[in-house]
Amino acid sequence: MNAAYEIYRELLRKLADVQYAMGVLNWDQETYMPPAGAELRAQQISTLSGIAHNMSTSAELEEILLKLEKDPSLEEKEKRNIVQSLKNLRLNKKYSQAFVETMSMAVSEAFTAWQKAKEANNFSLYAPALEKLIRLKREECTLAGYTGHPYDALLDQYEPGAKTADLVVLFSDVRSQLVEFVRRIAACPQNPDEFMYLHYPKSKQWDFGIELLKQMGYDFDAGRQDISSHPFTTNFGSRDVRVTTRISENNLNEMIWSCIHEGGHALYEQGLPFSEYGLPSGEYISLGIHESQSRLWENNVGRNLPYWKHNFPKLQAVFPENLKGVTPIDFFKAINKVHPSLIRTNADELTYHFHILIRFEIEKALIEGSIEVKDLPSLWNSKYKEYLGLDVPSDSKGVLQDIHWSHGSLGYFPTYSLGSFYAAQFYAKAKAEIPSLEMEIEKGNLKPLLDWLRLKIHALGKFYTAEDLCINICGEKLNFKYFMDYAKAKYGGLYPL
Amino acid sequence: MNAAYEIYRELLRKLADVQYAMGVLNWDQETYMPPAGAELRAQQISTLSGIAHNMSTSAELEEILLKLEKDPSLEEKEKRNIVQSLKNLRLNKKYSQAFVETMSMAVSEAFTAWQKAKEANNFSLYAPALEKLIRLKREECTLAGYTGHPYDALLDQYEPGAKTADLVVLFSDVRSQLVEFVRRIAACPQNPDEFMYLHYPKSKQWDFGIELLKQMGYDFDAGRQDISSHPFTTNFGSRDVRVTTRISENNLNEMIWSCIHEGGHALYEQGLPFSEYGLPSGEYISLGIHESQSRLWENNVGRNLPYWKHNFPKLQAVFPENLKGVTPIDFFKAINKVHPSLIRTNADELTYHFHILIRFEIEKALIEGSIEVKDLPSLWNSKYKEYLGLDVPSDSKGVLQDIHWSHGSLGYFPTYSLGSFYAAQFYAKAKAEIPSLEMEIEKGNLKPLLDWLRLKIHALGKFYTAEDLCINICGEKLNFKYFMDYAKAKYGGLYPL
Repeated sequence: MNAAYEIYRELLRKLADVQYAMGVLNWDQETYMPPAGAELRAQQISTLSGIAHNMSTSAELEEILLKLEKDPSLEEKEKRNIVQSLKNLRLNKKYSQAFVETMSMAVSEAFTAWQKAKEANNFSLYAPALEKLIRLKREECTLAGYTGHPYDALLDQYEPGAKTADLVVLFSDVRSQLVEFVRRIAACPQNPDEFMYLHYPKSKQWDFGIELLKQMGYDFDAGRQDISSHPFTTNFGSRDVRVTTRISENNLNEMIWSCIHEGGHALYEQGLPFSEYGLPSGEYISLGIHESQSRLWENNVGRNLPYWKHNFPKLQAVFPENLKGVTPIDFFKAINKVHPSLIRTNADELTYHFHILIRFEIEKALIEGSIEVKDLPSLWNSKYKEYLGLDVPSDSKGVLQDIHWSHGSLGYFPTYSLGSFYAAQFYAKAKAEIPSLEMEIEKGNLKPLLDWLRLKIHALGKFYTAEDLCINICGEKLNFKYFMDYAKAKYGGLYPL
Repeated sequence: MNAAYEIYRELLRKLADVQYAMGVLNWDQETYMPPAGAELRAQQISTLSGIAHNMSTSAELEEILLKLEKDPSLEEKEKRNIVQSLKNLRLNKKYSQAFVETMSMAVSEAFTAWQKAKEANNFSLYAPALEKLIRLKREECTLAGYTGHPYDALLDQYEPGAKTADLVVLFSDVRSQLVEFVRRIAACPQNPDEFMYLHYPKSKQWDFGIELLKQMGYDFDAGRQDISSHPFTTNFGSRDVRVTTRISENNLNEMIWSCIHEGGHALYEQGLPFSEYGLPSGEYISLGIHESQSRLWENNVGRNLPYWKHNFPKLQAVFPENLKGVTPIDFFKAINKVHPSLIRTNADELTYHFHILIRFEIEKALIEGSIEVKDLPSLWNSKYKEYLGLDVPSDSKGVLQDIHWSHGSLGYFPTYSLGSFYAAQFYAKAKAEIPSLEMEIEKGNLKPLLDWLRLKIHALGKFYTAEDLCINICGEKLNFKYFMDYAKAKYGGLYPL
């Protein structure tokens, strides 16, 4: 046992304790907190956040990391932990307490301004606060440092190693290949899906969602599901991983996709090695890889026919009247309706990426300074016209729809697309390595898939970068081809293309 | 504005943020946490606890307190805050980090050992861990310091200013007056209460409990109720004050008394001044005063006839079959059945105090060293025979029944009795000052009582000590006479004494 490494492990354990405590406060805030508690809760989370920042930049941690950096006796996993932790410490030290506090205030103001502006459908109520925030984000890029594009500094926080230049190439593929493909689908007659919007009582939907989660292998001894207005997954160590869902009584889609999507995130967290609590080796790799897990379950498994061959008869038994005469094929078609729409979170799995593309282009331009905040509404609307063929009727349904910028989360959106593309590539590999995979899914047996994901991804923590993980699993880097192959094969069967 | 005082206020605000964060983690642990999360949760709470300890003893806090101690410009409330905070800091500084950690470990071990011993009905499985803990508690008394009895040092943590010598006198009154009174009641024929133990469906009980809380004035915008195995009240500032209840489908008492009791605690917390967050002036005075609020609502209001004149017809409307032919008077008699029993938490409001008396005598003897842990079972059993006339059939139903000692909570039990006695005295004063009080209660109007409590107690925070508060309200110190007067008046009408 390496004494210095044990001290390092203990320091990171305590840091994780504080960060997960913040997680519990956040979870409670979104699920059960009474309304009058909001003001103090924001303050309590902010105090813990300051404590965590101090712990993550302490002289004690730095000293032990610098010592361990030169220790040749460490195992490979331990070495990689030290590298990761040093990177984090150096980054965190670049932000002064004053900068962190100014940013925190600016986020608070921007969030309030965004809420008001969205409600009033008036971008100008948001613009001054967003301008201030964008100035600070530009400053953050300078503080954090970058070699290529300043936006790299933001990307790196969510998707370590990702580069703006690579994303430009990737999204250029998305544009050139997906725009045309979606146009061809849009020209086809739509498949009927009216039965998705009948009255589905809440408690029956809830029970069905729980069964879907159990079937995926989600461990309810180490987790739970609750209701929140925006579904999310959170965890406080890998033995307490919680999901939330939302249920609309007039739209069956809400519950189904939030359960499967969040379940996918949760399986990743429940599969991370418990013994590595608090260490990089116990953490997820990147938001893109995290999203690959939710999207793989949601789209490659959940929006596919084998899954519903098994599950549709069960769903039909719960809602016999609503789904009378509907076949698994009808259902498969209904849940895969492709049509350009204004709101990202309601988009189908193909047009979804145009929403991300638009946000990526805008964020990149904002950070490099080639556009200003005042240009956003007109730019937004022209891009929605260009990529999705839609006229944006109001800023509330346009540039004001997403919460992310008001949270200061620039560089985050691209990970949603990366997740889907990784998912397609991983799923293709899983099918190749497990020939019976979809036959088992048809029988309701999802274990072979989960075992494969556990072995190839979950159990490894942050040992690899996203790129190396992909090479390790698939023998090549992220390749958009797999997503297009998946889309062509699937939608070719759904529409007369 | 006093700049130094503002720094002090800010330091205490942050300390409160961390302590309330621990509160959220504890609440979640008792209500919603999945079982596998337990191990990490204990660790996360312990880390926050260490952080709070460091904040509460920091050089920065000490320096500002010493400066403010000599500041003549402070207002009286501010001066008292500084005195309280200095007292806390000096006490906390007496415990080294090593001592705090050793105690925390000993508590953890004792708790596990207690659970095993209780389940196996085998005190010897608990004795070694409890011995270690008692040794540490004796050491704690020495570290904390005391002028009279060493047990004073423990009492003072829960009931600042309380003295062992005073409690000896008080409990001697309890013995001499209450033992004989209960004997006379026990000799009477029992009033029927079988209807309390019919089948009462859970969801209907839940809804009725919510209505009771609303009627008391509990603010659901600043609180919520959940289910837990042991009912409790917790808060994270006065705008998020939560209660829990437990519901037995075969015993109507569980829900009713936990709702009203915890509701009483919660009203105190919701009534503390929000602007004094984190400061002594925003805190409750002592556990005895806290318990006075829960007991006043539970016993003086809730176990009395005026309350049920209004509420029994409502209860009867919810459970018409179970309560057919039962009158408010029958119900009043059934909820006030006095008979000696083995388990404290199920005891009636009179024999309850014998349970506390026994624990007080034992704790005092343990701390002064006149008995040892190995003597506990036989001593326990002989006292239950002497005060309650009962043979204890097993240690599980005897010395092992309560969790408190395994938590290291010695000096805590007496506050339960103090609470009841304060409650009787305060309630007598409220009746004297508001002649229409019980007429209003009969109409279901509890607002005059709550307004009185808010004015006389809640809004004052920790401005007064418990003793001074009592003098301020009642013109005299705590006087056991009020409890006996209440008991005699009430039980004289319930039993042919």
